[in-house]
Amino acid sequence: MLVSAVPYTATLWQPSIDLEWRFMLNIVILAAGMGKRMKSDLPKVLHGLAGRPMLTHVLGSARALGPARLVIVVGHGADTVRERYAAEGDLAFVLQQPQLGTGHAVQQAVPELMETGGDDDVTLVLYGDVPLVAPGTLRRLLEARAAQPGSLALLTVELDDATGYGRIVRNADGAVGRVVEHKDATEDERRIREVNTGIVAAPTAALKRWLAALRNDNAQQEYYLTDIVAMAAAEGAPVVAAQPDHVWETLGVNSRAQQAELEGIYRGAQAARLMEDGVTLADPARLDVRGELRCGRDVFIDVGCVFEGKVELADGVSVGPYCVLRDVRVAPGARIDAFSHLHEAEVGADARIGPYARIRPGTRLAERAHVGNFVEIKNSSLGADAKANHLSYVGDARVGARVNIGAGTITCNYDGASKHLTVIEDDAFIGSDSQLVAPVTVGKGATLGAGTTLTKDAPAGRLTLSRTTQTTREGWQRPAKQTR
Amino acid sequence: MLVSAVPYTATLWQPSIDLEWRFMLNIVILAAGMGKRMKSDLPKVLHGLAGRPMLTHVLGSARALGPARLVIVVGHGADTVRERYAAEGDLAFVLQQPQLGTGHAVQQAVPELMETGGDDDVTLVLYGDVPLVAPGTLRRLLEARAAQPGSLALLTVELDDATGYGRIVRNADGAVGRVVEHKDATEDERRIREVNTGIVAAPTAALKRWLAALRNDNAQQEYYLTDIVAMAAAEGAPVVAAQPDHVWETLGVNSRAQQAELEGIYRGAQAARLMEDGVTLADPARLDVRGELRCGRDVFIDVGCVFEGKVELADGVSVGPYCVLRDVRVAPGARIDAFSHLHEAEVGADARIGPYARIRPGTRLAERAHVGNFVEIKNSSLGADAKANHLSYVGDARVGARVNIGAGTITCNYDGASKHLTVIEDDAFIGSDSQLVAPVTVGKGATLGAGTTLTKDAPAGRLTLSRTTQTTREGWQRPAKQTR
Amino acid sequence: MLVSAVPYTATLWQPSIDLEWRFMLNIVILAAGMGKRMKSDLPKVLHGLAGRPMLTHVLGSARALGPARLVIVVGHGADTVRERYAAEGDLAFVLQQPQLGTGHAVQQAVPELMETGGDDDVTLVLYGDVPLVAPGTLRRLLEARAAQPGSLALLTVELDDATGYGRIVRNADGAVGRVVEHKDATEDERRIREVNTGIVAAPTAALKRWLAALRNDNAQQEYYLTDIVAMAAAEGAPVVAAQPDHVWETLGVNSRAQQAELEGIYRGAQAARLMEDGVTLADPARLDVRGELRCGRDVFIDVGCVFEGKVELADGVSVGPYCVLRDVRVAPGARIDAFSHLHEAEVGADARIGPYARIRPGTRLAERAHVGNFVEIKNSSLGADAKANHLSYVGDARVGARVNIGAGTITCNYDGASKHLTVIEDDAFIGSDSQLVAPVTVGKGATLGAGTTLTKDAPAGRLTLSRTTQTTREGWQRPAKQTR
Repeated sequence: MLVSAVPYTATLWQPSIDLEWRFMLNIVILAAGMGKRMKSDLPKVLHGLAGRPMLTHVLGSARALGPARLVIVVGHGADTVRERYAAEGDLAFVLQQPQLGTGHAVQQAVPELMETGGDDDVTLVLYGDVPLVAPGTLRRLLEARAAQPGSLALLTVELDDATGYGRIVRNADGAVGRVVEHKDATEDERRIREVNTGIVAAPTAALKRWLAALRNDNAQQEYYLTDIVAMAAAEGAPVVAAQPDHVWETLGVNSRAQQAELEGIYRGAQAARLMEDGVTLADPARLDVRGELRCGRDVFIDVGCVFEGKVELADGVSVGPYCVLRDVRVAPGARIDAFSHLHEAEVGADARIGPYARIRPGTRLAERAHVGNFVEIKNSSLGADAKANHLSYVGDARVGARVNIGAGTITCNYDGASKHLTVIEDDAFIGSDSQLVAPVTVGKGATLGAGTTLTKDAPAGRLTLSRTTQTTREGWQRPAKQTR
Repeated sequence: MLVSAVPYTATLWQPSIDLEWRFMLNIVILAAGMGKRMKSDLPKVLHGLAGRPMLTHVLGSARALGPARLVIVVGHGADTVRERYAAEGDLAFVLQQPQLGTGHAVQQAVPELMETGGDDDVTLVLYGDVPLVAPGTLRRLLEARAAQPGSLALLTVELDDATGYGRIVRNADGAVGRVVEHKDATEDERRIREVNTGIVAAPTAALKRWLAALRNDNAQQEYYLTDIVAMAAAEGAPVVAAQPDHVWETLGVNSRAQQAELEGIYRGAQAARLMEDGVTLADPARLDVRGELRCGRDVFIDVGCVFEGKVELADGVSVGPYCVLRDVRVAPGARIDAFSHLHEAEVGADARIGPYARIRPGTRLAERAHVGNFVEIKNSSLGADAKANHLSYVGDARVGARVNIGAGTITCNYDGASKHLTVIEDDAFIGSDSQLVAPVTVGKGATLGAGTTLTKDAPAGRLTLSRTTQTTREGWQRPAKQTR
Repeated sequence: MLVSAVPYTATLWQPSIDLEWRFMLNIVILAAGMGKRMKSDLPKVLHGLAGRPMLTHVLGSARALGPARLVIVVGHGADTVRERYAAEGDLAFVLQQPQLGTGHAVQQAVPELMETGGDDDVTLVLYGDVPLVAPGTLRRLLEARAAQPGSLALLTVELDDATGYGRIVRNADGAVGRVVEHKDATEDERRIREVNTGIVAAPTAALKRWLAALRNDNAQQEYYLTDIVAMAAAEGAPVVAAQPDHVWETLGVNSRAQQAELEGIYRGAQAARLMEDGVTLADPARLDVRGELRCGRDVFIDVGCVFEGKVELADGVSVGPYCVLRDVRVAPGARIDAFSHLHEAEVGADARIGPYARIRPGTRLAERAHVGNFVEIKNSSLGADAKANHLSYVGDARVGARVNIGAGTITCNYDGASKHLTVIEDDAFIGSDSQLVAPVTVGKGATLGAGTTLTKDAPAGRLTLSRTTQTTREGWQRPAKQTR
């Protein structure tokens, strides 16, 4: 049997990795850029990737390393960025104003850096607009640095076309000699495909020294962090390099097109992870996972589904085409049909949902519950084997087991001022097109006649209805088309 | 005018081809593998491709050749596979337990092979996890074999990167000499791009002899079917080769990623076939055909549609974006709008369906019928020019011609125990939000007032309603927001 | 930071460009072909691209050049093409019957060509099945021609694989020497990658002379327009060339697969333009813009949306997955949720629409209006802060500010013959499942009880309802399942 070279090979990083650092780790994240090409009022690092700001992705990878200090350098839209992360107590913000280059940015963070004074203090520099860098990659970089005392470590990648990037010039022994910018490179050097990504890990004390010595005698009059490589070399400090698992971990976002491209990479990586875990995807290119999707065994996901927040699909769950699930837990064997929209809900084992079911926050559906087309359920529970299959609104209701809610049933939970509770006990049968004016209770095994407006409790086991006599009018004429 | 190299060039095979074999054909399908990388409780060959098990696809191609005998070698999940195909009387199952290699698998099938004793008895070996092999390709393989009496025929393909595969070493005269495994290949041999796919057609008597002589003196201690090539050569039997129309016919599935890749290939091939037949597809990459879709002239299919089972779209039919159709027949000129979901239904000429129409099994819509948004129709017929345009449930109903079903109408077809019939005769007008409590009949040309609960038949031509006096309460106060 | 080579680089042309021609411009569009491989009853040039006929796209580019004369050569389906454009007064149609080649086609247009008699009269030849040629490209072609008095200008492109196309043979000085057809080309000439696209701009007087001299002594017995290149060269007239911005501008459509490919190119180009303008697209490959989409700042468009006609999305608008918008204007900050379908409507600032909202023509939603799931609004206005959140039909209604329309409300706007108006004044509260039998008015601040059938006006400020007494029946038995 032949097997093809599968295009989905990326494994997403683990959100947390066990680390036992022998050193004091500072992480500085540069997040001061404007992002002019984004043409946006939002600071660039707050632009989304898979539903979360790029900076949040970087913070996730940074925190996975367990840093002693996490410093964010803000500038454009500084207040907006600060406010967005105000609740996150482990962050220190420093302001870079004006923005005079990457070296200048890291200089602003110097007062926040923690040191033991020992040789193993290290500072890692990340970028708020390079959102997909993985903890495993950063760990490798830190370990490469730690393996050579006093060294500066660069994250580098090999590119098919390195035009424009700073090349990594290695010595005869393979050690990194220096970084040469494209414009300064010889023809031979331009053939080098290994380039500098800008992500570096430096000994903290040396970094301070190097930063202080940076000069801006260049065309842009900016202070470049890259210049520390030459300083390290000049001091005789070893310069080492590590590589990421994927080149795309080092891609940055300067435009909406690049944002869309990273979104696509993220999409593909999520799909690859799910498939490796044994999930059947009808089309990996048409699956959007924006958050955390955990799947059991033999889960099937049809085309075009969107998952947001935390979603769990247990063994044997099937999700039809074009469903949207956000913060949902689905028990084994449940089946969610096409065009369903679920948000903050729990779906019981072997339940049947949709097509066109709208499940809103606070809903708990028990095992084998059925929710059918054009049915909205909000802040309600449905008991085992309960059914609401057609064109109904169930809000703020406690519905028992085996209850049958007829087509067109509406719980009138809102009186214009407050919301009230509807209780429907086990085995009740709600006739079609009934209105249950809450607060109201339908007793166990009660039946409501079709079209009933229920304003008082319906006693258990009996038929309750509000119905007028059906009459037929003699001599009535159907209106004729008005002509003018 | 320039025309580009179009990426969609694949023609799907015909499901049946005329064959007049001059020989007795056995087909053995290997279906014993576990598929460990699938991480599934389901035997690998039962995993789906376009909605049907991979083994079902292989059986389709196998049966198109009209074999005298069709043997399936089962192993992992043997009972599950047997049960799945229990109703298909032309299959013989043999058990391979334990699994000791492909040669061992075919050995188990030997007792089931049919022979005339003549030279032209042939046995074809296929794989349950190589689902897309086409009858035309297999026919070519059998004919290549038949052209050289006593020969063994291999299906081979040319790969850009053949690393890992057994290379086809040809003699100076171009005849197949032998198959050399990658690990045993010389540097020259490794440059060969033609590789063995594992699909072979062998003279039955010789095959038995060769199988009996297989040895497992290799690292895996398995019996390899490939070893028969060397045996054939050693006996001086000619070894011939044939090639498939497409390399992807020979791709196998070991993982969900490979399954998704073949799903994508199948998707593309179906789209290509439809476009060659003159169907306009808004996006061939966003069309899923899982079954048989037949289209008339000038059919338009918008993005994201899913077709399952047998679907027929007659001349001039238009299907809007994100529709799901399963086992549906649509007559000429009908238009199905966005987000519609149809299952086991017939749609009449020039009918208008959707958006958001849900048509369930047993529904027949006559010409020019309209079914609009948030309307569910189940096991019902609508006459010519009948309309149900808004928010209604029509179940178990016979609706006549020119009937107008108002918004929010519900047929109360279920009394908690049984389903009952609603009859609405020609030209009736059903006022909005009516409930028709079945069994009940609305006579020809009758009118129901809005909000009527119809429990007895409504006479033809008259207005029937159930309505109470509208009253306005003095001194009533709207509830104020409760504050606690 | 690395930035990747972004695949979306196409800039769509501007619909109008400022031109100050120093010459009299004729444009001839060849539109006589049958399109046999389309397998269609429709003339090929009327087949759609992004929802409009291909010929309409070509006309758009042609008109942007401000021609003195615009001639369409029709043939197959001539009447159908003429009828389709009957209302467009600037077009002259000439009939090519039978079709004897491209040169013959242009010959038919000769009587319609306008001339001043001066040297700068020019005739541009376009093709109705080459729909994506951009005005900027054509302008460049005309300017290249104008720069060399008396010259013939060819639009040429470089192809990776030029097999089958006429090669552009240039002289030692780089000037175009001649066009050699593939079959007549030497081996050296076949290595030329620059090919003729068929789009030419010629001095009108010379063109007439050349056309008159065309001969059909070839295998197909057709008159080829390309032959004028040799005639120009023979006369010593300069032959110049210009190139389009993108090769795809010169691609023609002969099959549904090519049609789908151009649809994909158009899709990508539209997405690229939007992203360059600062729109966030969740997936550029899953966005269909068929018409004109204008976006403000910081607009977000989720996967799978379809835009048709003229759509405007103001600053900060967010559109959820799988929405369809046609001829819609959306004010700043509005949010449209998944599966919504809007047509000829205006949506106010900060409005909340959907999921599953159906907005039909003639609808105006004021600021902060809410339209929720399974709600259809037609030819109605909703005031500021008005809400219709669940399962309702609002048609032909004027709804005031802060009105709350309960779940299941239906405006009974149709009496079987005519449509009538419903007026709901500010601050009214419509109880769930009410029917408003139009014409009817609900006064300011009025409340309707749940389930009310409103047939007469409801006075302001009071509670109006139609309700019968709720009763419970003793001794009633729920029906048991019928067994036969």
